Amino acid sequence: MIESRRRLADNREIIYFDANGTPGTREATDTRDLPVTTTHSECRYDALLGEWVVIASHRQSRTFLPPADQCPLCPSTPERSTEVPEPEYQVVVFENRFPSLATSVDPDLPAHVSGAPLAALRPGFGRCEVVCFTSDHTLSFAELSHERARLVVDTWAQRTTELSATDGVEQVFCFENHGEEIGVTLSHPHGQIYAYPFVAPRVRKILDQVRAHREAQGGNLFGEVLSSEREAGIRVVTSNQHWTAFVPAAARWPYEVQLFCHRQVPDIPALTDDERDAFVDVYLDVLRRFARRFDTPMPYIASWNQAPTRVGRDDWWLHLQLFSFRRAPGKLKYLAGSESGMNIFINDTTPEGVAEALRSVVVA
Amino acid sequence: MIESRRRLADNREIIYFDANGTPGTREATDTRDLPVTTTHSECRYDALLGEWVVIASHRQSRTFLPPADQCPLCPSTPERSTEVPEPEYQVVVFENRFPSLATSVDPDLPAHVSGAPLAALRPGFGRCEVVCFTSDHTLSFAELSHERARLVVDTWAQRTTELSATDGVEQVFCFENHGEEIGVTLSHPHGQIYAYPFVAPRVRKILDQVRAHREAQGGNLFGEVLSSEREAGIRVVTSNQHWTAFVPAAARWPYEVQLFCHRQVPDIPALTDDERDAFVDVYLDVLRRFARRFDTPMPYIASWNQAPTRVGRDDWWLHLQLFSFRRAPGKLKYLAGSESGMNIFINDTTPEGVAEALRSVVVA
Repeated sequence: MIESRRRLADNREIIYFDANGTPGTREATDTRDLPVTTTHSECRYDALLGEWVVIASHRQSRTFLPPADQCPLCPSTPERSTEVPEPEYQVVVFENRFPSLATSVDPDLPAHVSGAPLAALRPGFGRCEVVCFTSDHTLSFAELSHERARLVVDTWAQRTTELSATDGVEQVFCFENHGEEIGVTLSHPHGQIYAYPFVAPRVRKILDQVRAHREAQGGNLFGEVLSSEREAGIRVVTSNQHWTAFVPAAARWPYEVQLFCHRQVPDIPALTDDERDAFVDVYLDVLRRFARRFDTPMPYIASWNQAPTRVGRDDWWLHLQLFSFRRAPGKLKYLAGSESGMNIFINDTTPEGVAEALRSVVVA
Repeated sequence: MIESRRRLADNREIIYFDANGTPGTREATDTRDLPVTTTHSECRYDALLGEWVVIASHRQSRTFLPPADQCPLCPSTPERSTEVPEPEYQVVVFENRFPSLATSVDPDLPAHVSGAPLAALRPGFGRCEVVCFTSDHTLSFAELSHERARLVVDTWAQRTTELSATDGVEQVFCFENHGEEIGVTLSHPHGQIYAYPFVAPRVRKILDQVRAHREAQGGNLFGEVLSSEREAGIRVVTSNQHWTAFVPAAARWPYEVQLFCHRQVPDIPALTDDERDAFVDVYLDVLRRFARRFDTPMPYIASWNQAPTRVGRDDWWLHLQLFSFRRAPGKLKYLAGSESGMNIFINDTTPEGVAEALRSVVVA
């Protein structure tokens, strides 16, 4: 993989990732007259729940579903300059122009929110990156070649390694929001990477369970879940030598699949070459089943669950959580009172039925 | 308040609540030929997160946005029988025809999910009730009279008392989902009550924080949050002698207001007459500000946070959480990767700005 680092007109970093042996000369300059955007993010502590919330009030005015010929993630042309100066690219990563978290922070921030001594305040430190999977506006991840998807995996690994080494970053989150139905504002095939200044509540909660299980009974909770699913098979969608994709026994979402690596690794950089290739095979298979389950491709969120950068790494087990709000054609699951108010999920599908339905999808 | 208890054609319970001194004779019979619906709910334990998920696969076929002249929550007429046999009502509660949780449970349920020994299995025991606020299809809660809103509060109190006394019920949740944008399938003004067989994760998590705070510093965390908000005032939307409504310092939702009773009480039944009346004044004021904040009424979720029925009652402090996904006219906040994947909320509004905007709404 060849990396080429450049700067955009407003000094944001852009990194091209090209497969070995391909041209990879990335010299184009961003000629736009682009004002530097200012960010005003802060992290506020919710004392009742014991969790940090990011307040990013500068983001209200961000770009919303521009027409395809105005796509800022397409390559630049002589007529139109976009976020990517090159006339073509393979995989490219750049800093989000409207980030929720930023590396430049206010050094004079007070210790707590005005008038709220229990609500501790911290800068909205971190980094938000956009990852474009291909310069072809019309494709989706499910339609990428094996080679291109592998380049994306290697990109995630490189970004995870670099961001994890940054002072103050506690969690690196690679994800893709896919589909207008879940509010995606740009249809060009892309994902995002967030580097957070704290451990994600989901990860912290799972680590507590894994630790309690280890102390009480001595095995790894992730590994035991994985091995019983592999043995039972009824919730397995697809698998190969290194990865198994299954619907979790207590799935929260109408369509939810978790992809586990058979070997315990903390994060994407720890995967071997073979494991990365095997992941691509299983992931593309599952995504294509998602795309063909109903008449129109399923909207989804793909959420990499990596170990925090500094704690709990020996207990963690890398997995990808892929899920959709769609419960039937034209019907979405809304997170209403029970889910949003009490955090109790009510799922109208059965995990075993969903696994069977996804297994039955004919993948050409 | 006068209670009248009847049964619907399929044996579901219906209870009319009428103000004292009003007719209140409720003798109408449900003449429909209504098949008994069967429920197949179960609670599955998510071992990784340590939380129960309700799998209610029989609900996929439930009613979706019928035209207004087919509304099942309107009173019955000679031409058309609805869920409410009476030709008119004040407040009425009945068991949901498509409940997520049911009182009749399978006694032969295995101890864990098939092939998943770590995913404990319990019956989907509980009760799901519908609460109609008025027989007038066109109103919203914000448009109710003080007297009618007070009757709803007394109804919530009565239902909380009765459901809390039911063996196996650990949490009673009164809530309202309002607005098509959040997936409400029936536009008739109504809310719901869920009686859950376990303590809600949100409540359990807050209780952990409150307990830790008490043990470390003495003092009630809820009370300290409330008194600092009352003192600071910058996030207060409205208040009176018994209640204060404020935007939480670390709000997760674009529009979020919490209504706290000034006295520490565990649940709605513990409120005095004066406190109930004062709640109605503050709540109607806030709802009317929500309704007039933008050109069209704000969709919202109103979520009562009551103490569990058996544990943590001395630590708990009753409050209502009112929140909306709408961040600007025509723009919704979606719970995408960061929120749904990592449980990290990113809010594009500032709590102080929202409080100011809501205070500035002219309420006739």
